[in-house]
Amino acid sequence: MTGAPIPSGADGVEKIEVISVPGDGTVMLQSPVKPGQFITPRGIEARAGEVMVRAGERITPAVAAVLASFGYSRPVVSCRPKVTVLSTGSELVEVGLKPGPSQIRNSNTYSLAGYAAAAGCEVVSSGIVHDDFDATCSAITEALASSDVVILSGGVSMGDYDLVKPALLELGAEILVEKVAMHPGKPTVFAMIGQKPIFGLPGNPVSVAVSFHVLARPALLKMQGAGENHLPRFAAYAGGPVKGAPPRRSHQPGRLIIRDGRAEVVPLKWSGSSDLVAFMQADVLIVVPEDCQGYNAGDIVEAISLIDFKL
Amino acid sequence: MTGAPIPSGADGVEKIEVISVPGDGTVMLQSPVKPGQFITPRGIEARAGEVMVRAGERITPAVAAVLASFGYSRPVVSCRPKVTVLSTGSELVEVGLKPGPSQIRNSNTYSLAGYAAAAGCEVVSSGIVHDDFDATCSAITEALASSDVVILSGGVSMGDYDLVKPALLELGAEILVEKVAMHPGKPTVFAMIGQKPIFGLPGNPVSVAVSFHVLARPALLKMQGAGENHLPRFAAYAGGPVKGAPPRRSHQPGRLIIRDGRAEVVPLKWSGSSDLVAFMQADVLIVVPEDCQGYNAGDIVEAISLIDFKL
Repeated sequence: MTGAPIPSGADGVEKIEVISVPGDGTVMLQSPVKPGQFITPRGIEARAGEVMVRAGERITPAVAAVLASFGYSRPVVSCRPKVTVLSTGSELVEVGLKPGPSQIRNSNTYSLAGYAAAAGCEVVSSGIVHDDFDATCSAITEALASSDVVILSGGVSMGDYDLVKPALLELGAEILVEKVAMHPGKPTVFAMIGQKPIFGLPGNPVSVAVSFHVLARPALLKMQGAGENHLPRFAAYAGGPVKGAPPRRSHQPGRLIIRDGRAEVVPLKWSGSSDLVAFMQADVLIVVPEDCQGYNAGDIVEAISLIDFKL
Repeated sequence: MTGAPIPSGADGVEKIEVISVPGDGTVMLQSPVKPGQFITPRGIEARAGEVMVRAGERITPAVAAVLASFGYSRPVVSCRPKVTVLSTGSELVEVGLKPGPSQIRNSNTYSLAGYAAAAGCEVVSSGIVHDDFDATCSAITEALASSDVVILSGGVSMGDYDLVKPALLELGAEILVEKVAMHPGKPTVFAMIGQKPIFGLPGNPVSVAVSFHVLARPALLKMQGAGENHLPRFAAYAGGPVKGAPPRRSHQPGRLIIRDGRAEVVPLKWSGSSDLVAFMQADVLIVVPEDCQGYNAGDIVEAISLIDFKL
């Protein structure tokens, strides 16, 4: 078998050439073999007592394989929080219907359900709630019966038809946050009823996405005992001018581009917090601090990755 | 309602101050209102005829919301390919058992099942196949009965107990690829039985992960009609020396670090293609071309992101 690599080295870089010597049944090695060559010593990957997987780590496919190879067939894991997502607003119609002049189709329950599932939750129910005080109270009560967390969108601003806060108060909620100095996402409510957290996110689709990722997602991960609850942040070059919104902290949707060692976040053109079409392309949020009017192209800016780098 | 922002501007940056004039039921605006201010004009997000979501795009949560807002309640989607994952090798024991001196626990079906699910597949079956010709033939036959794709690991090198290729030939497979000039992952087999693709990936856990992501994943996505089948690639600074493996193209596990606009991929210390513990930390593969001995820290290198940037 001339030139055939020996099996144990088949996937390594080194190999030795083996030449068979016909007739006498012996083989001749063409190059010397070093002691230990092609042998993986015991304990090379880890020493006894080393921690392989810490409590709070997500079990990715590679982590699952590590747990398997060390014999952890039944690791202790967290329950998935059960979540109900509700879109509030009398202007909302179901996806299959054609909206009238003052209506729009419900889209927030679809993005929120996907985001919540990606954050490890089980979405048990979703739907539209019209701007009616009793209907809002009933929907929240019903959601609490089947869920650990309720996430609402819309109905949290200051108009007469913003009924989420009044309904929460009626239901005896402790309202911990009424608004947040961020943009988009200012009208964000956080409340507790008993041990159950309730998020009242804004109604605009982009505001929903931003406030979910910045405020709700960390809570959902913390409920699961995750070690790292926040999305990764990093500093990159601005790929274009970025507008701030003082006195609020702004989060502008953007795209990360890495080229020749240079990491740039390009702000997306968007026409406001209802512009989900633009937001669909985003993989980062560019952060503009409270006191900053904005950035120029080439400035170093902070970005939040919307993609969890953990596989 | 002194100083209260009007609802339509509640989440925008601009606001106007509204002062009520008590008594006569009129209101006075403190600042002029520009035409169109606070009004989102019809069609600002998209024009009639524009393509919002192309065929082949993955339906992320944000894409789902866009489809919903445009009334696509039943978009045409692809079937998830049904996949069976099999670990071959008489040295393998189940996770719950203590391996003897010449044994290891099966880990590859766990990583492969997770990777295949992340690539959109439905994993219908998985298990260990011992190094027996008839058992290997039966396992593949059984897998083909329930699956669209079979992914095996191990048994594809050149030893007497490498039975995947002989079994595939026995079953009438057309073997299209027998080995690949890559490291790790050289002993990778790709075959077809009828219309069903079969991947014979290497047995070492890291080789499995690399050959899955570089070779099998694109096929699984193509079967689903995905527009972009390959993981994102980009050029970044090497964060340390990277060893090549000429004449094979090498893929070294690494971590992406973005800091002050600089994107660096740091090669992980790993003790070889069985070192899953090191690989668990990887979020990129650093590519060293066929003709390259390696790179120094600070060189620009090509990296494949193991994380699909699409949310």
